[in-house]
Amino acid sequence: MSKEIGITVSKKDDLSEWYTQVVTKSGLADYASVKGFMVLMPYGYSIWERIREFLDKHLKATGHSNAYFPLLIPESFLRKEAEHFSGFTPEVFWVTSAGNDKLGERLAIRPTSETVIYDSYAKWIRSWRDLPLLINVWNSVLRAEIKMTKPFMRTSEFLWQEGHTVHADKEDTDAEVMAILDLYRRLIEEQLAIPALVGSKTDREKFVGAMYTMTLESMMPDGKALQMGTSHNLGQNFSKAFEIRYLGKDEQTHLAWNSSWGVSWRLIGAVIMLHGDDRGLIMPPRIAPVQVVIVPIPYKKEGVDIASRAKSIADELQGAGINVTLDDRAQYTPGWKFNEWELKGVPVRIEIGPRDVSRQQVTIVRRDTSERSAVPEADVINETKKLLDAVQSALFERASRALREAIHDARTFDDLKRVIETEGGFVRACWCTETGCEDRIKDETGATIRVVPLQDEEVFASCVCCGKTAKKVVYLARAY
Amino acid sequence: MSKEIGITVSKKDDLSEWYTQVVTKSGLADYASVKGFMVLMPYGYSIWERIREFLDKHLKATGHSNAYFPLLIPESFLRKEAEHFSGFTPEVFWVTSAGNDKLGERLAIRPTSETVIYDSYAKWIRSWRDLPLLINVWNSVLRAEIKMTKPFMRTSEFLWQEGHTVHADKEDTDAEVMAILDLYRRLIEEQLAIPALVGSKTDREKFVGAMYTMTLESMMPDGKALQMGTSHNLGQNFSKAFEIRYLGKDEQTHLAWNSSWGVSWRLIGAVIMLHGDDRGLIMPPRIAPVQVVIVPIPYKKEGVDIASRAKSIADELQGAGINVTLDDRAQYTPGWKFNEWELKGVPVRIEIGPRDVSRQQVTIVRRDTSERSAVPEADVINETKKLLDAVQSALFERASRALREAIHDARTFDDLKRVIETEGGFVRACWCTETGCEDRIKDETGATIRVVPLQDEEVFASCVCCGKTAKKVVYLARAY
Repeated sequence: MSKEIGITVSKKDDLSEWYTQVVTKSGLADYASVKGFMVLMPYGYSIWERIREFLDKHLKATGHSNAYFPLLIPESFLRKEAEHFSGFTPEVFWVTSAGNDKLGERLAIRPTSETVIYDSYAKWIRSWRDLPLLINVWNSVLRAEIKMTKPFMRTSEFLWQEGHTVHADKEDTDAEVMAILDLYRRLIEEQLAIPALVGSKTDREKFVGAMYTMTLESMMPDGKALQMGTSHNLGQNFSKAFEIRYLGKDEQTHLAWNSSWGVSWRLIGAVIMLHGDDRGLIMPPRIAPVQVVIVPIPYKKEGVDIASRAKSIADELQGAGINVTLDDRAQYTPGWKFNEWELKGVPVRIEIGPRDVSRQQVTIVRRDTSERSAVPEADVINETKKLLDAVQSALFERASRALREAIHDARTFDDLKRVIETEGGFVRACWCTETGCEDRIKDETGATIRVVPLQDEEVFASCVCCGKTAKKVVYLARAY
Repeated sequence: MSKEIGITVSKKDDLSEWYTQVVTKSGLADYASVKGFMVLMPYGYSIWERIREFLDKHLKATGHSNAYFPLLIPESFLRKEAEHFSGFTPEVFWVTSAGNDKLGERLAIRPTSETVIYDSYAKWIRSWRDLPLLINVWNSVLRAEIKMTKPFMRTSEFLWQEGHTVHADKEDTDAEVMAILDLYRRLIEEQLAIPALVGSKTDREKFVGAMYTMTLESMMPDGKALQMGTSHNLGQNFSKAFEIRYLGKDEQTHLAWNSSWGVSWRLIGAVIMLHGDDRGLIMPPRIAPVQVVIVPIPYKKEGVDIASRAKSIADELQGAGINVTLDDRAQYTPGWKFNEWELKGVPVRIEIGPRDVSRQQVTIVRRDTSERSAVPEADVINETKKLLDAVQSALFERASRALREAIHDARTFDDLKRVIETEGGFVRACWCTETGCEDRIKDETGATIRVVPLQDEEVFASCVCCGKTAKKVVYLARAY
């Protein structure tokens, strides 16, 4: 796929333009012809596959199964849970005809699948023996974005997974919600190398129809927070609406409990924005589709067989479980290849030139620091593995430092306003827990409470908004 | 999931009712509330995952990548290829509003993605260096089914994969079309244990917008053919409509060539219908989510530890790469479990009772023949592997025999009519290659030419319809 290579703007100077260029020039994604929609290109899709593999493996190991439910949802289903309906209808794409026939009832393209899934669950569940029911779905959902869209971060259609579970009681549902939250944390921190604040949403910010919502929130370089994943205890709201009942061991009929949870391709947006630099993407090694690229430096002199040396090192690395690409394309120069693979964020590059061959070594270059080192051929596998681990840790450490530096305490409303308007990032503040204060903060600063931390933090001031006694420490920010 | 266990009707007596009971009672799929739509339940989904893994691995090994394209397609895109548009619009679900806003242009939910994908390809392809472009998509498509629907076989939404490739010339496109056809053949014959007739479609039956279509056709027990997969050479039709051009090595601009190809969850329908018996499904071992189930036969006497013996055999089999489930649920009897796992078609069952333990053996039962044998514990892995291979082969052989027996030659129109109306199956007949004859056959018998065989067969009569000189031997049938 031909394209102008190289990012023409600095990340610091114009994050938005930089982001767009990285997304399209690195071959992650492209704009679709329908406004607000995106094409996930092969390189971007292969990152999504790695995220999916990680989650899928862990979900299956903990008793979850995959399934598939219909794309179209009757309007009457959405209306069964009133809050849910009013929350989603402004974003719903409506199907009104099939072929030349007008439909009797409008059908919504799923904005999320609670309603259509719980309609089935009500038929499937009869007894305590059927519980818990732990199902996950990999699909796409559509939510019309009328405001600004941005590839991966905010698009009218996105790929995600949505988990939907049924439990006998609150305790079991709570445990599921927290187990998934922790799985998401491991994905985000350990695979994507992105630190996140973990905790709950306020009632104002929770999922429409949920009893409570747990969330993971990260900070982007422009000072705006990004919601990375959510896990909801839906209480018995949907079970009531869809009549999901079970016969307990006590021979009585009970309303069931539900959880739902999801992460989307937005995670890829966070990886791009957080780790990238002026030369392009930097992929965390654990989710990099290509972990190592080998670029042979051609040499005319006879008797030095660089090509076969490069091939045998590529095979060795592949055999050791490393995803390696040997870039032996004749039509491009080594310099052109360096630029392209840096743009694509491949964490480790191995160069093999005539001097390397004569010394039985290779030259290894780290994408994140550009550090070069000569490594004896015998040590290539070990050194490469070490370097991949080093890049993974360095990215997480750098992002963790940035997160810490992006948190500012505020004791007064003026403080809060000033930080949000000048510095951005998270504001750590105390809150009285009244929704009125949240509304006022949102109206006057554009910031919302992103997360009420999982571990209660000690109240250090009065409510940042009304000045009355505070009950909670919370983290506020403007958000994507 | 509670359900009435056991199929209450014989496959021979009422195939349609039998099929519905097997699908729902075995936990493969369920009817959705919107007419014509289906829920793919966890057990069914895990079969789809095995089909997907097989294809995905082989597609990637041959240079194909996955990607994702938007669900919604502007009406104007569909109109760009006139035949394609008229072929698909009667089945399209139309989106006309988003939230409360009426859309300026109707958007089609993809019935297939040629148009939206080739719109992107036109932007991506510049030079011969960009070719071939080999992309595959795993998604669902929607085609409104107004006539009879049947789970897996004919539903208004189905999961499938659609491959879309771009090539420099006809030769390269032909090679891709045939390579995919062969991959599908391996999937269908070697994994699903279903024999198929392989060849091309006539112009009347080919994909709307294609230059030619290759197909795989299998025979169902009710004498109706099932199209299992198709691979199309689209010629330059879509490249012309979407202006996919490339600069050749000759520095001239050329129109590109396209192929597209797909298989859907319909394959699972064929597995159910072809291999199942009066006790339920019979899964071909290579795509069975559970290949072996171990059922311990509880025994009260002290000192005989059946549970731990069963567990260690399960671990051994799992370690040998066999998908095994140890059914140690206390709330069900062994007899109940036998019925359930037979219903689900698990190819091999291992029973471990007190007598087995005392003799250091297990009892192995084949699902397809109900044959029982005692196997020394030391041979369990080898014997299980042998038995799985034996079941795989036996299913394919039985289906191949049925296919051979379902093919009847016809020399005259009366012959053809009689066979179609009384016997069903494939009619092998000679054809003059005129579309008029195809139309008449369809009108008067309901049969169509399913496949023009890949290897030309010797003409043995005059045209079965008009009696003029025949040019081709073809296979006709009524079809799903």
